[in-house]
Amino acid sequence: MMSGNQLGVLFSLTTFGEAHGNAVGGIIDGCPANLNVDYELIEKKIKARQTANFTFNSQRKEPDKVEFLSGINKDKTNGFPIAFIIKNKDVNLSHYIENQDVLKPSHAHYTYWKKYGTDNALGSGRASARETIARVVGGCFAMMLLRQLGIEIYCFTSQIGNIKTRKIKKPNRNIIQSNPLYCPCTTTYEKMMDYLQQIQSEKDTIGAKVSCIVENVPIGMGEPVFDKLNADLAKAMLSIPAAKGIEFGSGFRAVSMKGTKHNDIYNTNFQTKNNYSGGIQGGISNGEDICFSIAFKPIPSIMQDQQSIDTKGNNKIYKAGGRHDVCVVPRVIPIVEAMTALVLADHLLRFNAYKNTIV
Amino acid sequence: MMSGNQLGVLFSLTTFGEAHGNAVGGIIDGCPANLNVDYELIEKKIKARQTANFTFNSQRKEPDKVEFLSGINKDKTNGFPIAFIIKNKDVNLSHYIENQDVLKPSHAHYTYWKKYGTDNALGSGRASARETIARVVGGCFAMMLLRQLGIEIYCFTSQIGNIKTRKIKKPNRNIIQSNPLYCPCTTTYEKMMDYLQQIQSEKDTIGAKVSCIVENVPIGMGEPVFDKLNADLAKAMLSIPAAKGIEFGSGFRAVSMKGTKHNDIYNTNFQTKNNYSGGIQGGISNGEDICFSIAFKPIPSIMQDQQSIDTKGNNKIYKAGGRHDVCVVPRVIPIVEAMTALVLADHLLRFNAYKNTIV
Amino acid sequence: MMSGNQLGVLFSLTTFGEAHGNAVGGIIDGCPANLNVDYELIEKKIKARQTANFTFNSQRKEPDKVEFLSGINKDKTNGFPIAFIIKNKDVNLSHYIENQDVLKPSHAHYTYWKKYGTDNALGSGRASARETIARVVGGCFAMMLLRQLGIEIYCFTSQIGNIKTRKIKKPNRNIIQSNPLYCPCTTTYEKMMDYLQQIQSEKDTIGAKVSCIVENVPIGMGEPVFDKLNADLAKAMLSIPAAKGIEFGSGFRAVSMKGTKHNDIYNTNFQTKNNYSGGIQGGISNGEDICFSIAFKPIPSIMQDQQSIDTKGNNKIYKAGGRHDVCVVPRVIPIVEAMTALVLADHLLRFNAYKNTIV
Amino acid sequence: MMSGNQLGVLFSLTTFGEAHGNAVGGIIDGCPANLNVDYELIEKKIKARQTANFTFNSQRKEPDKVEFLSGINKDKTNGFPIAFIIKNKDVNLSHYIENQDVLKPSHAHYTYWKKYGTDNALGSGRASARETIARVVGGCFAMMLLRQLGIEIYCFTSQIGNIKTRKIKKPNRNIIQSNPLYCPCTTTYEKMMDYLQQIQSEKDTIGAKVSCIVENVPIGMGEPVFDKLNADLAKAMLSIPAAKGIEFGSGFRAVSMKGTKHNDIYNTNFQTKNNYSGGIQGGISNGEDICFSIAFKPIPSIMQDQQSIDTKGNNKIYKAGGRHDVCVVPRVIPIVEAMTALVLADHLLRFNAYKNTIV
Repeated sequence: MMSGNQLGVLFSLTTFGEAHGNAVGGIIDGCPANLNVDYELIEKKIKARQTANFTFNSQRKEPDKVEFLSGINKDKTNGFPIAFIIKNKDVNLSHYIENQDVLKPSHAHYTYWKKYGTDNALGSGRASARETIARVVGGCFAMMLLRQLGIEIYCFTSQIGNIKTRKIKKPNRNIIQSNPLYCPCTTTYEKMMDYLQQIQSEKDTIGAKVSCIVENVPIGMGEPVFDKLNADLAKAMLSIPAAKGIEFGSGFRAVSMKGTKHNDIYNTNFQTKNNYSGGIQGGISNGEDICFSIAFKPIPSIMQDQQSIDTKGNNKIYKAGGRHDVCVVPRVIPIVEAMTALVLADHLLRFNAYKNTIV
Repeated sequence: MMSGNQLGVLFSLTTFGEAHGNAVGGIIDGCPANLNVDYELIEKKIKARQTANFTFNSQRKEPDKVEFLSGINKDKTNGFPIAFIIKNKDVNLSHYIENQDVLKPSHAHYTYWKKYGTDNALGSGRASARETIARVVGGCFAMMLLRQLGIEIYCFTSQIGNIKTRKIKKPNRNIIQSNPLYCPCTTTYEKMMDYLQQIQSEKDTIGAKVSCIVENVPIGMGEPVFDKLNADLAKAMLSIPAAKGIEFGSGFRAVSMKGTKHNDIYNTNFQTKNNYSGGIQGGISNGEDICFSIAFKPIPSIMQDQQSIDTKGNNKIYKAGGRHDVCVVPRVIPIVEAMTALVLADHLLRFNAYKNTIV
Repeated sequence: MMSGNQLGVLFSLTTFGEAHGNAVGGIIDGCPANLNVDYELIEKKIKARQTANFTFNSQRKEPDKVEFLSGINKDKTNGFPIAFIIKNKDVNLSHYIENQDVLKPSHAHYTYWKKYGTDNALGSGRASARETIARVVGGCFAMMLLRQLGIEIYCFTSQIGNIKTRKIKKPNRNIIQSNPLYCPCTTTYEKMMDYLQQIQSEKDTIGAKVSCIVENVPIGMGEPVFDKLNADLAKAMLSIPAAKGIEFGSGFRAVSMKGTKHNDIYNTNFQTKNNYSGGIQGGISNGEDICFSIAFKPIPSIMQDQQSIDTKGNNKIYKAGGRHDVCVVPRVIPIVEAMTALVLADHLLRFNAYKNTIV
Repeated sequence: MMSGNQLGVLFSLTTFGEAHGNAVGGIIDGCPANLNVDYELIEKKIKARQTANFTFNSQRKEPDKVEFLSGINKDKTNGFPIAFIIKNKDVNLSHYIENQDVLKPSHAHYTYWKKYGTDNALGSGRASARETIARVVGGCFAMMLLRQLGIEIYCFTSQIGNIKTRKIKKPNRNIIQSNPLYCPCTTTYEKMMDYLQQIQSEKDTIGAKVSCIVENVPIGMGEPVFDKLNADLAKAMLSIPAAKGIEFGSGFRAVSMKGTKHNDIYNTNFQTKNNYSGGIQGGISNGEDICFSIAFKPIPSIMQDQQSIDTKGNNKIYKAGGRHDVCVVPRVIPIVEAMTALVLADHLLRFNAYKNTIV
């Protein structure tokens, strides 16, 4: 499928739905039969994406509710496509219609207008964060599959503005889950909250860096050359709205490192002393934790009027309106987890296809 | 094709060949008919990748020669698959055989061994930089197609170790092409050369950052949601050996930026005052220059003995041997250009497929 | 997507839904923006597939109703995925549950049981004709696109049992549409109706042959080698439940023909005197009518008890139950049309992608 | 890859090369590592496709020789792409150049001209039977993989002109291999040879029907809905030059059969008494022999002058020239086997991917 609404080949997710349409949803295909459906996981992750009661987020009154239309039989997957929908409520187009002819800065408004025509640029429906809810549902099924092998994914906030968490080898998952920012350090969490408060009071938004760790990945996942595991993860992460960059293991620090320092030396148990490689060598998992970080830009929807132009090129003010999140964190966290799970589930099935074929 | 040796769907490149086998090569498919084949471009880019006469590179005596087997008729493409091979000469397996049972640190040796079996890990043939020659040839055909629309790609070295080029809006292409490091600043170039000299004398290697700019991209290329232009570029770049990260436009700097600063404000000619977006909005080109940077790690092959283990887990020394490059720059430059061209050519044909369908 | 629930790459349809689940539906992706949605066409084709009031069909009381969830804006396509659902009503599992452990002869029951597990074989949900409703909806959008170029598809019944329509070059579309069997000859239609009456009274079912003609296909659609236009049509037709064979142009008659007779000789207007080629040469449309016929087996669900075995291999009777169609005709007609439209729409976009690239 | 030169996704073959270019060849990708390469099988099948010494075939003086460029290590597959070339010798374009402007009846000449331009229509290089040599090589590797599970494929000639072999349940493989026509009946073989002699003396060509049987297919291969095993086989077979139709099991005879007769009744060992289903139910293998037949048209290249037109629409004679085969049989036999093996190998890996995932 080439219109870009599908990810994965053996384990795939196709999403549909505009932010201001009737519903968003998707089809998960290639999920093996007889997997127990963990509805609690789905509900938890959907809520985590929504975070309706977090101070610095815009709020939708009603929680999102996932309806499954197919692919599940007696609370187990049946091997057929799992279709699901989430109805859109509280749809309010008034702000968009009011600003319809004024280009929204740093937003898909202009590119959608040029690619699909004026009418279809309204609210830039597919570019909206609303679409990501389908990714979270798809990711939950991927996680259910990965858990069978003990693979675990967790994400945390490593930076907001200039406030960074200390570099630690293994963040404490309990601390991460104990605060709404998924921050692995309690002191930093408090600083971040204060900073978000300040940004909000300035009617501004701020960027963030999110990190992801995957544990217990079997050795050998990923393909050489073009479908390297890091290449496919990079594509998945850069497909998240507002993502500006990704780095694996040492990442951009590697630019100023020497080989003697950067090379990961083996212990006699085949594990490496350091993990600058980020768990991937030659595009293939090496059994160490896979780790990477993603840079997110400040959300372009701000609570201030902005200088802009209209579709005819006249100077116009793009008016502030609606309520907006101050930062992609924490809502982006379950999305990063989901995208990671989707890529790994697809590679797991590829791994199965070729594995043990020759006795 | 799911073994990961293919990139692109409408304009695709499939590569084959192990570093120490008979030949490397590839098939370019989906290249439209009746395009003039620019053999000089191919020769120039192949040479740029080989840089046999650059001081800090390992040297192969004979230049690589591309033989075309199909897809060309009277020096024009004929619409059919373009198959090409480059024979491997100077193949010397002695160093690899000598070290066969000792794991090479930060190298695909271990992951290939576990995934394909001992014999097939030798030299980790597909993980070798040798494979990238096919990417360069494929990229040349992509460039020939892109040139029809005036699209131009150029890459430069923005950092080696801690030596950075000054941030400038538009690097001077003449300067870039005037020095073997593709450095956009003459003074920085000299510093970088001195530094590479120092690293070489230390028998070490060093990381680098490479930047890429694409000019004259039509508005509307790229697909929303998963196949965003930046997502597909990220995948392509992370598939280059030694790549550790990628960032678009503002990149990781966006993490500490506020929305009021980061938002790209429009001029009345629909161009933006800044280009923190890196030429892509909502995954779709907006007509500004596409710009991104890639982090490369220091080459893991160093001229020193390294502590390691053998395939049984015993401590062993991985011995220094052969000649190795000091840095991925400058050889990686034509590879980055090629991968960029391949992604854009594929998206150009996708763009054509949907464009102007409805009158 | 490799679980087989998707057809097409540039213009694609993904279907979901088990016959006895909540809903069936699909996602149409790659449909260009700004195409007027012809709701009447959809309703007409859905009704044609349902034919609730045709004498020899099983009957569902309520007409199927298509709900669109996305991809449509002001009655035009907006370039985004078009998701739709048709709720399942009148779901009655009692007959299936009663016979759950007895293998249904010539039915997907056994293969689904072995592939997906016992529970998921119940009613063999995805093998049911119910799934084809999503194909009909998808096909309507493909037709809307094809009509822009004047491409027209029509299907007719060429044989039921041993009753054949006379071989005529160009069947009369008015006659085809004037009778519920889509028979191009009024006399044959009456014979067929009598025959179906007889088969029904025997509590049996009967096979049929359906033919399809596509007019005004532009020259040059289809790709050489593997994705020949006839190859892709063959795949699409053989994916229809109960299809046993397909033939293009002369088809199986070609086996006993000589080259001097079979070769299609050109008139000076580049059209051919005969059309044994069926409108396709070397896998590429040549501007003549595309024509092919499909063999369908007698429906395996019959109104008689049948000898069978249970899942443990014991002899058992598979009991007659429910109401069943006597023949795949006429309900299969809109499905054949839809599958034809889907293949052609996908190839049309491929054609666009490569066409006119080089000036 | 969408230019149609690739078949399969997990086990894939990409072919290249024009009949009158330097070489033909291909890349086999996704072949698992550590499979013994059976060079004798390859040589045998290549010879069978060439049949240089068969009376009724055109003759190339030198046998085709396959060179492997990659993917093989110590006579085993190494898990990487297997690239191979077969150089074109005896290339003689004189007949084509002489007739360049006269359309060759029932040939890809016209469609290639319109799709790729005049120059690229010469000899219609990719439509030539020469391309199929790469399919045979690819098919051999697929067979090597399938043999691990005991899967066996064999093909025979079931009809030439009006001369048919008697319908028998299980043709004798020894007889098939004992005569150059792969005819399962010695008496029929002699009649066929006489008939071919007669056709040749008439300077004409004749159609043929080829049948294929696959034994020991595991239950559960194939996907429901669009990627049914029969659908994928149909596509593969119709991609063979000169193929006009395909039928599975009962095939076109099913049109005149009743359900009570056609339904395959189970024995208590889960095998069926008849096999009208052709080994596939609901698109999934049921453990019975897979069987299908393909109709081939008479070869359009005949040894007589033919009435035609030139590229300007003037009446012209297309002159007889060169030597041509009298019938696609026997050279098409190894091609049918190869295409069958390629489809099954791809589905085998898909089967592996999903199988046993959930414990």
